[in-house]
Amino acid sequence: MDGTAIVLTNGFGDQSSAKTAHGLVRGTDRYRIKAVIDPLNPGKDAGEMLDGKHRDIPVFDTLAAFLESKPGKVDFAIIGIATKGGVFPRAMQPTVESAIRHGISIVSGLHEYLGDIPEIAQLAQEHRVQIIDIRRPKPKSQLHFWTGDIRKVTCPRVAVLGTDCNLGKRTTARLLVQAAHQQGLNAQMIYTGQTGWMQGGKYGFVFDATYNDFVSGEVEHAIVRCFEETQPDVIFIEGQSSLRNPSGPCGSEFIVSGGAQYVVLQHAPARRYFQGFEEIQASIPSLKSEVTLIRMYGAQTLAVTLNTTGLDKRETLRYKVQFEDELGIPVVLPLQEGVDSIIHQLKTLSGQKNPVVDGGSAV
Amino acid sequence: MDGTAIVLTNGFGDQSSAKTAHGLVRGTDRYRIKAVIDPLNPGKDAGEMLDGKHRDIPVFDTLAAFLESKPGKVDFAIIGIATKGGVFPRAMQPTVESAIRHGISIVSGLHEYLGDIPEIAQLAQEHRVQIIDIRRPKPKSQLHFWTGDIRKVTCPRVAVLGTDCNLGKRTTARLLVQAAHQQGLNAQMIYTGQTGWMQGGKYGFVFDATYNDFVSGEVEHAIVRCFEETQPDVIFIEGQSSLRNPSGPCGSEFIVSGGAQYVVLQHAPARRYFQGFEEIQASIPSLKSEVTLIRMYGAQTLAVTLNTTGLDKRETLRYKVQFEDELGIPVVLPLQEGVDSIIHQLKTLSGQKNPVVDGGSAV
Repeated sequence: MDGTAIVLTNGFGDQSSAKTAHGLVRGTDRYRIKAVIDPLNPGKDAGEMLDGKHRDIPVFDTLAAFLESKPGKVDFAIIGIATKGGVFPRAMQPTVESAIRHGISIVSGLHEYLGDIPEIAQLAQEHRVQIIDIRRPKPKSQLHFWTGDIRKVTCPRVAVLGTDCNLGKRTTARLLVQAAHQQGLNAQMIYTGQTGWMQGGKYGFVFDATYNDFVSGEVEHAIVRCFEETQPDVIFIEGQSSLRNPSGPCGSEFIVSGGAQYVVLQHAPARRYFQGFEEIQASIPSLKSEVTLIRMYGAQTLAVTLNTTGLDKRETLRYKVQFEDELGIPVVLPLQEGVDSIIHQLKTLSGQKNPVVDGGSAV
Repeated sequence: MDGTAIVLTNGFGDQSSAKTAHGLVRGTDRYRIKAVIDPLNPGKDAGEMLDGKHRDIPVFDTLAAFLESKPGKVDFAIIGIATKGGVFPRAMQPTVESAIRHGISIVSGLHEYLGDIPEIAQLAQEHRVQIIDIRRPKPKSQLHFWTGDIRKVTCPRVAVLGTDCNLGKRTTARLLVQAAHQQGLNAQMIYTGQTGWMQGGKYGFVFDATYNDFVSGEVEHAIVRCFEETQPDVIFIEGQSSLRNPSGPCGSEFIVSGGAQYVVLQHAPARRYFQGFEEIQASIPSLKSEVTLIRMYGAQTLAVTLNTTGLDKRETLRYKVQFEDELGIPVVLPLQEGVDSIIHQLKTLSGQKNPVVDGGSAV
């Protein structure tokens, strides 16, 4: 664990923009989260706001109010929001500067590097605190090309993909790891986003901050290292975006470069268009065609997991039955019923080969 | 045109490692190529070596020998080789330093930046020449996210994809542009590799040196800008790698983010495994499944173009007939018979919609 932390947001209730904060409140092994600072939701418990579970993480409206509560030592203030274009909202700068003056280091996963903002960089130097910009690309000397070493990995690899961005892939992947642990399996997770790193991921990389040429090698390297160091029973790979999201198609890397034999596919039936592109009506393709596409890359979809946002119980059940009939695979509600069934299913499968990576017959 | 140039190689005859040099000898609008420096092939004509066509580009074994020939002013020396991992071969450093001392600027598309090698950087400063590292990523402030503006582009877009890397996609794309020009069309090309830039491409970006998150937006931006500035009849997009190449799966971006409605698919029948991964026998999937996969992304494969390396005339004809029967689309030999037929074919097609990008019915 790196230390204690607070999370800065500006509207914790917003599913999309506060995604990083939600992940941190849901659970992190890297930090002990002491509070959320959010001017819009003071006095609440962040856990209760998120999903009704009290987690003893109070929300304060200002950093000053939090510090007045005599919270003890705080090591990090984490920027808990995602913004359009990854720009750092200047409205947050006073809070960040105040944190630095109180000896608190700053962690950010935004595209705009806080360490490149002169006033922040200088202040951090004066107060000897760190500015950790997670998305800053690694130097090339630390990056890996794909080598084919993935073939040495003999345990099953399951990629948690989705039909859109921002619909719960990381959360489902974490639930799968937890469920596998409870069933006595040594399960590991490969993180591929900044929130995954913030949650304490040891193996992985920040996908979208990587030069394209190194993505395949970084996926492979993370999996191979994880396999060699932990000898796991199963590896879950956090997916990103979706295979046909025009704003950033992604997913084939996990199957063809990471050699995932299996996929758990997260889907939000109430969402008709790709998030952020509702106005231009960029349609999310059908679930059935997504499963076919995944098959063409060489992986078998084990189960569909549903994000039920915007659905009532009746509609949820209707979709579950419809998709099970249509696809002939289990459709699971991770947040409501857990994912134990997928782990049971996984246990019955032996180490299948990935046709592309393992040199079986090409599809 | 940027100026006159020489190309440095170390084995011009090698199809794979001298790919950049071959592209430059084949034709560039950015430079006037005066010579190739290659210790292994002095005294020959580079054009004749490449494909039997004399191009008045002599090969010298050393820079000194070239300079003794009183060649007049030379502005640039281009590193014409691709190396494993993109490392700059130190055996070339004396030649590069000598060029700098003669006032010649250096252009490199290697992963390793020549401008970061202290002796080279310092020497360049002393002699006031430029070190142009094409793969150095642009600053984020100059990069674009995907916006959906691609929908404003009304002309047909044709992505030239392939079933592997390094089998002639860029060359076929250039031939298509030339053939279209000869048939009176205003055809434009989007370059996506460093050689494309070196050949004088005005619209495009270096795909593999781009942070993953900006790839979709850079593809879109290049196409939209090209469309607005040149009002073309057709845009050809240079593909990279292949959809299922484990060392860097790529291609869906051109269809789902760049809205390509059509694909010309380059294929090398004699190649069974992905280049560089023959030892681990990573199989290239079947041509038929590739066409199906492209269809799933929303594009129609107009024609297959064959790289006939390693095939005799009889085998070539056999594959041509076999693939035409199997796929029901034309199979063309670009270097032997040209690509006029594909342009004719394209003329008969009206501006079809891309189902994903243009909001038609999802696949």
